[in-house]
Amino acid sequence: MAKKKMHLTGFVLYAPAPHTMMSWIYPREKIRWHWHQNEYWRSIAQTLERGKFDMLFFADGWGGGNEASVRYAVQFPVHDPLLLISYLAGFTQKLGFAVTMSTTFYAPFMLARKLSTLDHITNGRIGWNIVTSFSNGEARNFSLDKMIPHDERYDRADEFMEVCYRLWDSWEPDALKMDMENGVFADPAKVHRINFRGKWFNCQGPLDVIPSPQGRPLLIQAGASERGREFAAQHAECVFGAGGRWFTDDLAQRALKHGRDPSKIKIIWGAQPIVAETAAEAQAIEQSVLDRIPPQVGLHLMSSHFDMDLTRYSLDTLVNDIEGGAIQGIVESFKRAEPVTLREAAQIYGRGMMPHLVGTPVQVADQMEEMLDHMGGDGFQVSPPYYAPDYYEDLVRLLIPELQRRGVFRKEYRGDTLRDYAFEE
Amino acid sequence: MAKKKMHLTGFVLYAPAPHTMMSWIYPREKIRWHWHQNEYWRSIAQTLERGKFDMLFFADGWGGGNEASVRYAVQFPVHDPLLLISYLAGFTQKLGFAVTMSTTFYAPFMLARKLSTLDHITNGRIGWNIVTSFSNGEARNFSLDKMIPHDERYDRADEFMEVCYRLWDSWEPDALKMDMENGVFADPAKVHRINFRGKWFNCQGPLDVIPSPQGRPLLIQAGASERGREFAAQHAECVFGAGGRWFTDDLAQRALKHGRDPSKIKIIWGAQPIVAETAAEAQAIEQSVLDRIPPQVGLHLMSSHFDMDLTRYSLDTLVNDIEGGAIQGIVESFKRAEPVTLREAAQIYGRGMMPHLVGTPVQVADQMEEMLDHMGGDGFQVSPPYYAPDYYEDLVRLLIPELQRRGVFRKEYRGDTLRDYAFEE
Repeated sequence: MAKKKMHLTGFVLYAPAPHTMMSWIYPREKIRWHWHQNEYWRSIAQTLERGKFDMLFFADGWGGGNEASVRYAVQFPVHDPLLLISYLAGFTQKLGFAVTMSTTFYAPFMLARKLSTLDHITNGRIGWNIVTSFSNGEARNFSLDKMIPHDERYDRADEFMEVCYRLWDSWEPDALKMDMENGVFADPAKVHRINFRGKWFNCQGPLDVIPSPQGRPLLIQAGASERGREFAAQHAECVFGAGGRWFTDDLAQRALKHGRDPSKIKIIWGAQPIVAETAAEAQAIEQSVLDRIPPQVGLHLMSSHFDMDLTRYSLDTLVNDIEGGAIQGIVESFKRAEPVTLREAAQIYGRGMMPHLVGTPVQVADQMEEMLDHMGGDGFQVSPPYYAPDYYEDLVRLLIPELQRRGVFRKEYRGDTLRDYAFEE
Repeated sequence: MAKKKMHLTGFVLYAPAPHTMMSWIYPREKIRWHWHQNEYWRSIAQTLERGKFDMLFFADGWGGGNEASVRYAVQFPVHDPLLLISYLAGFTQKLGFAVTMSTTFYAPFMLARKLSTLDHITNGRIGWNIVTSFSNGEARNFSLDKMIPHDERYDRADEFMEVCYRLWDSWEPDALKMDMENGVFADPAKVHRINFRGKWFNCQGPLDVIPSPQGRPLLIQAGASERGREFAAQHAECVFGAGGRWFTDDLAQRALKHGRDPSKIKIIWGAQPIVAETAAEAQAIEQSVLDRIPPQVGLHLMSSHFDMDLTRYSLDTLVNDIEGGAIQGIVESFKRAEPVTLREAAQIYGRGMMPHLVGTPVQVADQMEEMLDHMGGDGFQVSPPYYAPDYYEDLVRLLIPELQRRGVFRKEYRGDTLRDYAFEE
């Protein structure tokens, strides 16, 4: 029997350093292009396509800009990824793309229109990572004094999705005629006003984009909270998982409750494989990644995530001893029995909070298969711990052939759309 | 003395038929690609670049979808042009692009970020056509019951511009360091919060995009109303003119009042040159364009512009006899002394409200030079009256060499940015 195929995405930010802090630093003579140059991204996208990755996945944010984030490029600046994706569509044929867009900062008509347009330009290769945003820093760029409360954001997002679904369905599949002989562009009986009136949004419709190759983007979600998992169980086709087996089981239960087949919700886990010809070489690469990250950089990232100034504590402080409820959750998220110091927490934040899988191709492929056996789910979000053009080339040269040899990763794309790839077994 | 150079833009919508109704109809055997396919736009952009046009200019709208607009494709559907522009950036080296974005439907942070990102991706070739939007149909897609009143929209747009300027200036030019040796990405003393608090918008900043090649997009505006001209005199570097000499003079006066040099505001006029080897051939092409447009299509476009149902009147009705103040303005805009029937008004609306300049290359070049002598201003927005890939090829094959021969149009691009081209004399 053929083995179940793993799904892999390249997980990035259109930024100097995606999720591993200070990864914009690299030996200068090996830098071919910088992160803000088109060629950098063309190289990454073409490498991922050569490696048959499902997609290049862009996280996004709309805030930042305090002293530390400017000095160290802590998830700042972040350029607009939608525009980069349509640029990259011209230099790839098969690779999928996913983009993070916020239901709090976009209007539903604007968002649905942009994603349908992107589905046309990419010819069916677009996915939407649905986020509600969370930081007060982001809110303050959008005329809000602070972020809308968590559960209200999700209620609002539910209504947002309803508007989008109706817009995407506002053209019946055979509405478009382009009948030049009779001068009929489309059949007005098959293109519908939606006349949506909700608690947060009104929208008249129809969508001003003709039906796109996928009809609607692949829907992706990443919320780890209870309300977030409930949202995912209702809407998502692909989920960025957090935690482990309990998450897989919980999501399956929730999907069933909503009358959905759990196998139709793919789960991918964040990971940073670091692969080299020898284990020693791989370990040396990992060490160089870690050596680039001063503890204060992780501390600044934590400060911004928790909206509190953690730099006023000594690095030896136990996180349990820090005032304020939010930060206590860190201990649990690290799955550590023993007390965690701020230094350790900052290091884990600084390196990106994803497990490093370090070793030879055989060792890393073993770890990846074991993780999926253990946690369930379908694959990995692969985030670059060092200079991304080189990083993905290393993976495609060393790791992908080993996964393909084992029959756990595709050798060719099957189908034409991102949705086809995402549901390939 | 070298003659003053004319400026030319390709003026389109990412839609089946830009400004000439029914121009999506064409002999089927001559259609190479359709308007929703990437290749159609690549062809247009590459043709305009070969012809040394200043830019490809996308109008935009966020509404439509009534029965007539669906049936005849009356400025509907309209896909999102920002995404198309970044795609096209990959297939052009010099051509500029302009995109219409609404201060009513975008948040300033979102808009400033997208345009700065596009300025990076195009390497300094982006312009922004600033609009405030006007139709209730558009408002109803964005949770508004009707459009914000005209003058309030412009007051709001003034504040919107102020936020954008501050965001674009929030990074000092030498703030970016990317100093890998000392681990300093940017100098926090040179990247500033803007902490803007206005009547309509608050924004914390800084912008999350590093300084772009042009610093800010070329600013373009098209409002013909008194308040619109006042806005243009304050903000615009390039204006889509309306009317004639009085407009040129009025704008110059207003510019002086705001302490600006009138020569730093370029004026371009809408026009549709229809050029062929012989005058008879050009006239036959024009007739085929007009024959494709049933009067009711123009009537529907007028109905939607004036937000009233004009289809209930006979085509022989004089527009002066129609109730409601708005439509009276049509007579004036056509500069006709004699009474205008609804049929005539509908025909002029249907063909796109721009003058047809019909004839041989010599005849049309003469007309263009005369128009600029007569009205002042700097060039033309050239809108395709028929299948756009063929139309622009015809112009570049026939008209451009004649203009170049006369020394009134560039033979090569000078400079690298859209702003360089726009201000080339």
